[in-house]
Amino acid sequence: MRRISQYIGCLLCVVALPVLAGNLKLPKNLIALDSKEGQEIFQQSTYKADFWPLMENIETQQNLMYSGVASMVVALNALNVDPPTEPAHAPYKMYTQNNIFTPAVLKITTPTNVNKRGVNLTELEKMLGDYPVKALMYRTNDTSYKEFKESAMHALKTGKGYVIVNFDRRTMGEKGGGQFSPIAAYDATTNRFLIVDVARYMYPPVWVNGLDLWHAMKAVDTRTHEPRGFVIISKL
Amino acid sequence: MRRISQYIGCLLCVVALPVLAGNLKLPKNLIALDSKEGQEIFQQSTYKADFWPLMENIETQQNLMYSGVASMVVALNALNVDPPTEPAHAPYKMYTQNNIFTPAVLKITTPTNVNKRGVNLTELEKMLGDYPVKALMYRTNDTSYKEFKESAMHALKTGKGYVIVNFDRRTMGEKGGGQFSPIAAYDATTNRFLIVDVARYMYPPVWVNGLDLWHAMKAVDTRTHEPRGFVIISKL
Repeated sequence: MRRISQYIGCLLCVVALPVLAGNLKLPKNLIALDSKEGQEIFQQSTYKADFWPLMENIETQQNLMYSGVASMVVALNALNVDPPTEPAHAPYKMYTQNNIFTPAVLKITTPTNVNKRGVNLTELEKMLGDYPVKALMYRTNDTSYKEFKESAMHALKTGKGYVIVNFDRRTMGEKGGGQFSPIAAYDATTNRFLIVDVARYMYPPVWVNGLDLWHAMKAVDTRTHEPRGFVIISKL
Repeated sequence: MRRISQYIGCLLCVVALPVLAGNLKLPKNLIALDSKEGQEIFQQSTYKADFWPLMENIETQQNLMYSGVASMVVALNALNVDPPTEPAHAPYKMYTQNNIFTPAVLKITTPTNVNKRGVNLTELEKMLGDYPVKALMYRTNDTSYKEFKESAMHALKTGKGYVIVNFDRRTMGEKGGGQFSPIAAYDATTNRFLIVDVARYMYPPVWVNGLDLWHAMKAVDTRTHEPRGFVIISKL
């Protein structure tokens, strides 16, 4: 996948758009990318090398429990690391939310399990361990806000890593529960990260304040009783 | 839509090429959106009101024959016209490449038929007729290049209509056969349209010269022996 180190386009002329298909109303602390303000933030951002590879590979989680799996698929396709041949698309190659379950991954979790309870951060890290990538997991109980920002900003600036965040929607003012999604950009002026939600039927890409996102990642996973966090995925 | 001989040709091509996120090598007449030149064209374009709704709803065709179905789904989700509740995502609503086959649509064609031979422009128009949208079909044998450009540019400028083109890849220098995909922008300076290909495993979004696209739409559909063309979909 091609990429450029810095997006140079001016998007101010893009009109503010109506609410997209199936989307819930955004809380006031979140700014939709496709709003006038969201476009202005995008224009001034200098941490967006990951943006186009992610947007060109973004897909909707295939059911309500698949946000971790979908986020992993988007990152692997954006990284373009040895995608498998997908029977329905042969001879072409791509990661999908189905073929991601290799025999090795099935020892960690199964589609049946994911359908019941999703994946957690530990499972996601293990699943990524079966792919030819470097996956660094950070939990918010042993990582500082400063460390989160610096490592995420570095990945977004260089385009060499993709960041998947695991956050609690309610802490961020959204409806729903725990969610995985990639982040695609950061803007230093407003201190906002761009979450490209894989539940596209719920929320469009939104700019969220860094501290709001941090607090949403600090929220404990009610199933594992562990704090949430983030994963940075890069080539070996 | 593809003959066996073309299929084998594609296979050989894939083997010979370096892997680019499943993407084939672009012919020289096409400019990738995420290249430096592609970004410059995007910056100067003033016909891109459709761009964000399309990019936020773009999805990959679910098999090699589903480009028409996928393009229709992307346009309906971008228009946000009364999406159905999808069981896997209930209570949320969205069009999918499966739920698009309502009882009314199944009288026009079926997933089994689409798996065998895709859809043609006439079928696509009829399928859209079962949804609450206005769908205007234009065939290149009774439409002029000027009419195509004017109607597509109007839709892309105002954001009030989504344009799906049905073109022959080979005429445009690509590998493969007939294809449907939405176009998301137009740039007057270079006279290029932006095709956001639903076969994301083959090609990234590309800027194509207007006349090259027109010739690719003039190519006869080898199954129906009719010229190809385009559809503009808007709210009622």
